[in-house]
Amino acid sequence: MKIRRSERLIDITYYLLEHPHTLISLTYFSKKYGSAKSSISEDLSIVKRTFAERDLGFLETLPGAAGGVRYIPKMSEARALEIVEDLCQKLSESNRLLPGGYVYLSDMLGNPDILRKVGRIIASKFSNENVTAVMTVATKGVPIAQAVAYNLNVPFVIVRRDSKITEGSTVSVNYVSGSSERIEKMELSKRSLARGARVLVVDDFMKGGGTVNGMKGLIEEFEAELAGICVFAESRFTGQRVIDNYHSLLCVDAVDTHTRTISVRPGTYFEDEQQKES
Amino acid sequence: MKIRRSERLIDITYYLLEHPHTLISLTYFSKKYGSAKSSISEDLSIVKRTFAERDLGFLETLPGAAGGVRYIPKMSEARALEIVEDLCQKLSESNRLLPGGYVYLSDMLGNPDILRKVGRIIASKFSNENVTAVMTVATKGVPIAQAVAYNLNVPFVIVRRDSKITEGSTVSVNYVSGSSERIEKMELSKRSLARGARVLVVDDFMKGGGTVNGMKGLIEEFEAELAGICVFAESRFTGQRVIDNYHSLLCVDAVDTHTRTISVRPGTYFEDEQQKES
Repeated sequence: MKIRRSERLIDITYYLLEHPHTLISLTYFSKKYGSAKSSISEDLSIVKRTFAERDLGFLETLPGAAGGVRYIPKMSEARALEIVEDLCQKLSESNRLLPGGYVYLSDMLGNPDILRKVGRIIASKFSNENVTAVMTVATKGVPIAQAVAYNLNVPFVIVRRDSKITEGSTVSVNYVSGSSERIEKMELSKRSLARGARVLVVDDFMKGGGTVNGMKGLIEEFEAELAGICVFAESRFTGQRVIDNYHSLLCVDAVDTHTRTISVRPGTYFEDEQQKES
Repeated sequence: MKIRRSERLIDITYYLLEHPHTLISLTYFSKKYGSAKSSISEDLSIVKRTFAERDLGFLETLPGAAGGVRYIPKMSEARALEIVEDLCQKLSESNRLLPGGYVYLSDMLGNPDILRKVGRIIASKFSNENVTAVMTVATKGVPIAQAVAYNLNVPFVIVRRDSKITEGSTVSVNYVSGSSERIEKMELSKRSLARGARVLVVDDFMKGGGTVNGMKGLIEEFEAELAGICVFAESRFTGQRVIDNYHSLLCVDAVDTHTRTISVRPGTYFEDEQQKES
């Protein structure tokens, strides 16, 4: 049975979205649909153009016998900023204020629609960085890590502050919690990260940067490389931050427990590389 | 500018995949593309047919003025069984064996490709159950919960065994850990679950069922309803299980630390409702 173009376009779109950052040969599609490579090639240029026009991502085409296509989930910075401005508004709702000036954000980190967008935004920034693993710390960083890993199509690993018998041998590091100056310990299962991995560190919230710094230490212990750091939200911090060169989507500027106001603005993700404070 | 059918089909497919379980009106697409509703209607029937033929999910069409379409991610049980049989093989690799007869599975729970499939499989079983929230317990249940929540398009909530100041007021329950007979405590942020919610409970691994039973207790405390229970893997348990009426994708039948073998077979997900052991 002959497969019509319309059906191929639907199935190709579906397949690409399920297989981001994966090289797929023309031959694969040609066999799947019993269609000539020239037809598939035309299909793919329609998909490529539509994705580009509608800000749905980038379809990379590799010519030659070993060629094919690779779908790179991407979002323009303009669209990302729109989304983050919405999130800023959501995060500044006064009923999020918790005792001690903490801000409740677990609902946002459990919302599939927000996570899909956040994952896409963070992955866009690092899509050319040859990331081979995403790392975060339990528990609230996990949804961010998974959302980003879905878009980059690489595994994510979870660093823990407690030991678990179901993790096997682990490597642990001590780190200084930036805000409280306490010494803490974190560990990662030894088999979860390969030597030479290119690791993107993500987390839900950063204050002094101690936790992120701990993860940097773990990456060194594993003889892996840091590919980048991105947090969902950071809070303004008066002390000396232990890390620089990170990205944040949102920045909590001020929390006033008397007037019950939370001021949030877009984070360093949207700053020019040159302008960024060190 | 006139939008051609081929472009509409690509964009519609993309949009539906990003908005599962969401009613989208014909008017929305008609305005988006500046096309007549009759054309959109034809587009949608092509999408519906292609999704059905290729086991990509179900496109529900609602007629009338308030009508539209809703994309229900679904996978046939035959395809689900193929995937789970692959996972069984992967889980029975002898190098997963940990001291004490535990089985390492963190790598599987950090693999986007596996999680995408597992999320789709679990969501397929509960797509008609009016689930409004997915619940799990930290930390290793989180990836499963997120994967399922993506497919059902509902929020997921994370029950914790430790208290966190960033969660606000919580409700806690005590529960008996089925395997060790110890009394433990778990808690959930008060604002994370609405009264009357229909909750699907998921977890990575179940032995005696104590943890899942604790979550059932929490659901009662919140005056919510249990919509179903599904775990990634269960292990054969010789004692009396504290819960029945659950689904598992994989069942670890036996672990032999001498011969270093792990026997895994597809779980109760694939049993007929009648045949299922109570």
